[in-house]
Amino acid sequence: MKEQVIAEIHVVPLGTATTSLSHYVAACLDTIKQAQGISYQLTAMGTIIQGPLEQVLELAQKIHEVPFTMGAKRVATTIYIDDRRDRLATIEDKVKAVLSKSPNR
Amino acid sequence: MKEQVIAEIHVVPLGTATTSLSHYVAACLDTIKQAQGISYQLTAMGTIIQGPLEQVLELAQKIHEVPFTMGAKRVATTIYIDDRRDRLATIEDKVKAVLSKSPNR
Amino acid sequence: MKEQVIAEIHVVPLGTATTSLSHYVAACLDTIKQAQGISYQLTAMGTIIQGPLEQVLELAQKIHEVPFTMGAKRVATTIYIDDRRDRLATIEDKVKAVLSKSPNR
Amino acid sequence: MKEQVIAEIHVVPLGTATTSLSHYVAACLDTIKQAQGISYQLTAMGTIIQGPLEQVLELAQKIHEVPFTMGAKRVATTIYIDDRRDRLATIEDKVKAVLSKSPNR
Repeated sequence: MKEQVIAEIHVVPLGTATTSLSHYVAACLDTIKQAQGISYQLTAMGTIIQGPLEQVLELAQKIHEVPFTMGAKRVATTIYIDDRRDRLATIEDKVKAVLSKSPNR
Repeated sequence: MKEQVIAEIHVVPLGTATTSLSHYVAACLDTIKQAQGISYQLTAMGTIIQGPLEQVLELAQKIHEVPFTMGAKRVATTIYIDDRRDRLATIEDKVKAVLSKSPNR
Repeated sequence: MKEQVIAEIHVVPLGTATTSLSHYVAACLDTIKQAQGISYQLTAMGTIIQGPLEQVLELAQKIHEVPFTMGAKRVATTIYIDDRRDRLATIEDKVKAVLSKSPNR
Repeated sequence: MKEQVIAEIHVVPLGTATTSLSHYVAACLDTIKQAQGISYQLTAMGTIIQGPLEQVLELAQKIHEVPFTMGAKRVATTIYIDDRRDRLATIEDKVKAVLSKSPNR
């Protein structure tokens, strides 16, 4: 497997008149699903994606555009990248590594 | 149900000599498990918790201390709070709301 | 000086009908100015504050409430805490430490 | 002026043996200084940069690589993008807009 990063992406349109943002998030998720070579997991606070750094950033740029195509005038996007190069780890591996060390599991 | 927020907390010790941080995260998770009235979900990028705002911040302070008790000298903690007061929603509700609007589900 | 942390706080009301949020930020800033024992610096992306951890979190909770008092129904707040216990450093010290090591300054 | 975004970037090497990270930040800053068409401001918590979205993300990728070239094995990078398309605003404008609305200035 080529070097990969795990990232969490969080796209929020501002000034949208309604507090409900789930249809924007759903449209972003559809863009993520169409991306090649990217694993993803939707959470309550964002979407965790895994793939090569360059493709992750390209995808981040793409989903940042999604709310604008739906009428938003301002979008705040947070990209949090965890890039570990001494060892490969998937989204699932990271969770398992923690659980295996939790005494009260 | 009393007013609740959903938050993502991410505690990272800096200057730890080793790149592996999962035992710190496991210890933080154990503190979260012992908290009363808090729902939680571990993800690859942090822990999502749900509860009343004040208790969420108290818990955040508590888990921020955990790496120090394990020898860390510097800790970077991110707390991201989503507080919606027009409607109650759980961690699961938020994910379901997105999935229900995703055309390619 | 008692142990202090440096934190960046970022309070964003969602679903506000207008993309302009500066009056909300101004109201948050006024709450910060009234806090005892807190140093602060306004930036284009948030407010950096310095003080004892507990007071920083109390202040974060207070300013998170500000947009609700102004009519917001949903608020997203990010608190990023840098807590270094091996050495005291102020907001200014951190910037100076970087600049002193920058070869092209 | 072409459409621009304001972003805050925060690059942190993990597992570095020492809690002092300012020489990494200084090296990242030098990479930012060499970027064409980018305005920047160093803060105690990260670097705020302004420029066209694509160049901002390219620069983010470049500075994310810097700690690896200095021996780091794991790097956590946060990119927070504020992209407002109804109105141009510089890093300075955003701060001034808040201060002009602050009653106790």
